[in-house]
Amino acid sequence: MSDLDQLIRRVREFAQARDWEQFHTPKNLSMALAGEVGELLAELQWLTDDQAREVMTDAKAADRLRGEIADVFIYLVRLADVLGVDLLDAARAKLDENERRYDAATHYGSARKAPPLS
Amino acid sequence: MSDLDQLIRRVREFAQARDWEQFHTPKNLSMALAGEVGELLAELQWLTDDQAREVMTDAKAADRLRGEIADVFIYLVRLADVLGVDLLDAARAKLDENERRYDAATHYGSARKAPPLS
Amino acid sequence: MSDLDQLIRRVREFAQARDWEQFHTPKNLSMALAGEVGELLAELQWLTDDQAREVMTDAKAADRLRGEIADVFIYLVRLADVLGVDLLDAARAKLDENERRYDAATHYGSARKAPPLS
Amino acid sequence: MSDLDQLIRRVREFAQARDWEQFHTPKNLSMALAGEVGELLAELQWLTDDQAREVMTDAKAADRLRGEIADVFIYLVRLADVLGVDLLDAARAKLDENERRYDAATHYGSARKAPPLS
Repeated sequence: MSDLDQLIRRVREFAQARDWEQFHTPKNLSMALAGEVGELLAELQWLTDDQAREVMTDAKAADRLRGEIADVFIYLVRLADVLGVDLLDAARAKLDENERRYDAATHYGSARKAPPLS
Repeated sequence: MSDLDQLIRRVREFAQARDWEQFHTPKNLSMALAGEVGELLAELQWLTDDQAREVMTDAKAADRLRGEIADVFIYLVRLADVLGVDLLDAARAKLDENERRYDAATHYGSARKAPPLS
Repeated sequence: MSDLDQLIRRVREFAQARDWEQFHTPKNLSMALAGEVGELLAELQWLTDDQAREVMTDAKAADRLRGEIADVFIYLVRLADVLGVDLLDAARAKLDENERRYDAATHYGSARKAPPLS
Repeated sequence: MSDLDQLIRRVREFAQARDWEQFHTPKNLSMALAGEVGELLAELQWLTDDQAREVMTDAKAADRLRGEIADVFIYLVRLADVLGVDLLDAARAKLDENERRYDAATHYGSARKAPPLS
């Protein structure tokens, strides 16, 4: 079993052991995901771009950011599990699509009309 | 190399091939992440809980949801890569913490005061 | 001067008195807005629909919700001020458009294909 | 009746005329609000700070931003109406609190430890 599959299973068992599956509806989990992304934004919102690039050199800020990124990832893993979505398959299919849609030559260096990644 | 590591590398090379690394600052990527989560919420927002539970049985809605989840995952992978955060390590550390903080017996079946997962 | 205009001015003067205008760029304020919306979602995310409908009868939850709604409104007012957008004019123009786009007879009772309001 | 009160009433009547009140639960509206904030972020996410400061000089971008800000405002007005929250009262109470909490002398020019506005 891959490390990611082990994580998916651990998150699922965490919820089961606390009888929290009843709360883990798709809508509730999507709200929780958005809430955690909001906390992640709050860590970066008042920094200049230069400060944000260096943010991981501050041990306390780095800890908080790792924690917020972990929260986002955990809820994303849980939501995908509840919906029966394979995260890696879905991401690979989307990248296939993006590689066709944004061919490297045409979109080289341009973000305004071709938003990066999706 | 694990499947997740291959995905991280593919997303990085996608950005490099288009000279889009200049746009992939921590702040910009966190905004893009929030934007994609917003699109995910939009897929679920007017459904009842019962409809949301069945949403993957509708082929078109399922395709859209897989696409939105993929977008969220791709930006999260990219943001973690740019910040030098190991997604799996961070998630495991957070789950260690949550397992201590929300012991299963005390928090069994209770979500109001002990928000699930984080 | 209307009550809303007085609020806009008060928020502006609050920022000026603390020399915080330097932080109030459009991007930073949009991130702060998203962060506050995330806190608002966090107040509602584990409630059932029935619990959420009654949430204002709980004095503590009602206080927190009023506070989160206020935070969202304050950042929205500030962002609109910084961008030179008249909130009321913009909302009225959008409602004009929505009244044309979603005529009441065709869209009566239907939300799936015609997302309410916008 | 103030301009804001007229807007609140118009949004309410818009929902009533389409029998959309059934969809306007607190949870659904908070999700819609987050979705619209996501669209607002998407307008700004790849711009540099300098480009974002000038964004309203581009007629098309300005139109889109006014539209997104309007959507956020309309859903916020609707959510506050459904919850029985007076937007202006709530914002004034929060500003009273923030003026006490962040006295201008102590917090002059400093955003890292004292996030502006809330």
